[in-house]
Amino acid sequence: MKSVTLDYANMLSPNLGGGGVEPADLEGTWAETFRNAFEDVDARIESGEMGFFHLPDAREAASAVQELADGFGQWFENLVVLGIGGSALGTTTLRDSLLGPHWNELDDEARDHYPRLFVLDNVDPRSVSALLGRLDLGRTLFNVVSKSGSTAETMSQYMVVEGRLHELLGEEPTRGHFLFTTDPERGILRQIADEEGVPSLEVPGNVGGRFSVLSAVGLLPAAVAGIDITEVLEGARAMGQRCRTPVLKDNPAGLLATLLHHSDTVQGAPIHVLMPYSDRLRSFAAWFQQLWGESLGKAKTRDGREVNVGPTPLPAVGATDQHSLLQLLMEGPRDKVVVFLGVGPGDDSVEIPAIRQEFSALSYLGGHSLHELLDTERRSTMEALRQQGRPNLSLEVEDLTPRAMGELFMLFETATVFAAALYGIDPLDQPGVELSKKLTYGLLGREGYERPDLGTGSNDWRV
Amino acid sequence: MKSVTLDYANMLSPNLGGGGVEPADLEGTWAETFRNAFEDVDARIESGEMGFFHLPDAREAASAVQELADGFGQWFENLVVLGIGGSALGTTTLRDSLLGPHWNELDDEARDHYPRLFVLDNVDPRSVSALLGRLDLGRTLFNVVSKSGSTAETMSQYMVVEGRLHELLGEEPTRGHFLFTTDPERGILRQIADEEGVPSLEVPGNVGGRFSVLSAVGLLPAAVAGIDITEVLEGARAMGQRCRTPVLKDNPAGLLATLLHHSDTVQGAPIHVLMPYSDRLRSFAAWFQQLWGESLGKAKTRDGREVNVGPTPLPAVGATDQHSLLQLLMEGPRDKVVVFLGVGPGDDSVEIPAIRQEFSALSYLGGHSLHELLDTERRSTMEALRQQGRPNLSLEVEDLTPRAMGELFMLFETATVFAAALYGIDPLDQPGVELSKKLTYGLLGREGYERPDLGTGSNDWRV
Repeated sequence: MKSVTLDYANMLSPNLGGGGVEPADLEGTWAETFRNAFEDVDARIESGEMGFFHLPDAREAASAVQELADGFGQWFENLVVLGIGGSALGTTTLRDSLLGPHWNELDDEARDHYPRLFVLDNVDPRSVSALLGRLDLGRTLFNVVSKSGSTAETMSQYMVVEGRLHELLGEEPTRGHFLFTTDPERGILRQIADEEGVPSLEVPGNVGGRFSVLSAVGLLPAAVAGIDITEVLEGARAMGQRCRTPVLKDNPAGLLATLLHHSDTVQGAPIHVLMPYSDRLRSFAAWFQQLWGESLGKAKTRDGREVNVGPTPLPAVGATDQHSLLQLLMEGPRDKVVVFLGVGPGDDSVEIPAIRQEFSALSYLGGHSLHELLDTERRSTMEALRQQGRPNLSLEVEDLTPRAMGELFMLFETATVFAAALYGIDPLDQPGVELSKKLTYGLLGREGYERPDLGTGSNDWRV
Repeated sequence: MKSVTLDYANMLSPNLGGGGVEPADLEGTWAETFRNAFEDVDARIESGEMGFFHLPDAREAASAVQELADGFGQWFENLVVLGIGGSALGTTTLRDSLLGPHWNELDDEARDHYPRLFVLDNVDPRSVSALLGRLDLGRTLFNVVSKSGSTAETMSQYMVVEGRLHELLGEEPTRGHFLFTTDPERGILRQIADEEGVPSLEVPGNVGGRFSVLSAVGLLPAAVAGIDITEVLEGARAMGQRCRTPVLKDNPAGLLATLLHHSDTVQGAPIHVLMPYSDRLRSFAAWFQQLWGESLGKAKTRDGREVNVGPTPLPAVGATDQHSLLQLLMEGPRDKVVVFLGVGPGDDSVEIPAIRQEFSALSYLGGHSLHELLDTERRSTMEALRQQGRPNLSLEVEDLTPRAMGELFMLFETATVFAAALYGIDPLDQPGVELSKKLTYGLLGREGYERPDLGTGSNDWRV
């Protein structure tokens, strides 16, 4: 049983009037190139370096999450995740796709009495004070998510929240208001959890932030909000199996990786637009952006050659962004591939009533459903791009179920590591973010870091 | 008095170790090129083609908006904007920047009893049914915003809402629940307004969707939610004046346009990242994306040469996206310029308490404010990019006031038309979106449009 299908006809040269991929190559040269990439990745999966692939099989970890979510997690009105990047994007995606982006605006009954779920993913004082100001802190569980236990933004949020709780609780310990998701052994959060008895969950050592949605990082908040995490994991496991073949034409992640890598490195199209036709998948596109951008944007290959590669992922949402980006996609430089994502109608059928039929610019709409309009726009936009010889792909998802989300997560994670093998770079590190961190430490006076001189900002170049 | 400053030191070759812009050019060749572009734009402003520039002076229109907002607008609990693209993005930006992205989660008192403000900018049935399902429709004003009066998505929403109101009101007319913002003379909405007495406002004929935020399109919803639109317009007027000089070095919009155009056409950096360090400006970055992408992404020059030009605008938010995009910005291809946007601290000072001082990875944070951390991260990231020879700009905004937002809107609108003059293209049209629309009409059976054959979707290219 599969909920996600990939259609790549609009990448092929016969459909684009030349200029695309030759169908024969998919069974020739490219099949061979992919087989090599597959073996490379397979070895790293087998050696345990790529822990994300095994998360759907970590049944004990999932049970621990479910137990904590069903008990402790339900004592509270609100769950606030304190996390940033990979500690936030997967959780937001699960919430928005499966509960709706407006979950927190629903009343208790509409939420089946599950807690509200907030993700505080920035240190913007306006956001932090607005959120803490409107929640009853005594009835709020704070899930601090940081693998290292020293992420500046997350630990600052933690200190701010703990300070507020001290004001509220006086001498009473704060441990009953926190849940830590962090490294099994190392770091400050682990140490505090051990010493003070704060409930905690583990991010396996071989699972990095942007690959962590199927670990306790994403699963705990999802389970607290009532999402069926077993089904999410089932979907991920099924997709993992589909992507475990070295035969390119049978491997959806392999095809995604191969076609997008080719578009960047051969066809001069380094911008990869992910455009779900679903408001609920806006966060999924943002999750993809981090995964694809941070994994593939690298200065050096694994064997040390300076290359400065990496496609630029651009999240969009249809039909909305047809009124923002489509003009550029249709007429601008041929530097983009659009990955469309269509979603089945689900249960929320909304019919357009056959009123105002005296106007021909309205009468054709009456009698159709909003889903028909939305999905017709998606297909029309794919076709319009195709007619301009502009390549695009289409993922089709039956419905926004926990299982389908599991499939989508695993599809893109696996495609990412395949693409990395094709680029020859390491998808698991992010050395480029260190310099900015060091400068921040220096400017804030952290011990052992020199204060950088940023100059005074010459007024000659200000207006 | 100005609230917005542009710092472009990190675009200059002495600061980038070569490879950037030669400072002397800004007073030499480029000053001359800009002067020509300025005169070109100036002529179109004077001829009345570029109506957006005069919106801050349309005092009567602003009074009509304010009057409607203070009276009719306050009879309701909720205002729902039905609009898409330029009819939605400016309104969302005004709400999020000045009231906060979570305005609708606040209770009546926290909103000073102003209405909630929703923007329904898609035909996703899940969003439409969720929103209509949780609002008291009898106490909701629907502001239908479409200049043409025939936008498929907006008119479908209108028909769905009117259908629901018929169910609720029976024989009673629906006109008291709608407010139309549309062309002064033409289109279905204008006709219905005239015939049935629906309250309405005008989008001037010479103001296109993506340049319409300072017309009734953006101002009415803002005023209903209690935003001081006079101040927004004052800021816009002041910035308009600052950008009315042909001297490049004195013209902030001219500098933005010139530097970004140069980065795309000469330096091979066609991706323009707008990265405010403020959650409240996330929607502003999306507003910019439409403005920049749809105005500049064009197949042909004004004199008909095929060029397929246009930079790709990429919205981001700091510090959050340092944990998503920074790796790619630092180590990926040198195809990007980042426009940072820093915001002053405002009133919401949140101190990080000096607790947990036994950990050196936390102790340096205690005693700083969240704003210090956020702004230090912005400056560190600019410096880290500079040290890698990667160009960036910085806008600095004193505070998120109505005046500052007016300045920002006018700055970017003016920069857009200057950039268009440098590219030689027309910023006011969007011919590339027509083909997809036509295909949609055909597929939905609109009279006069042929049904296209999209093929059956061969299973050979599906997995």
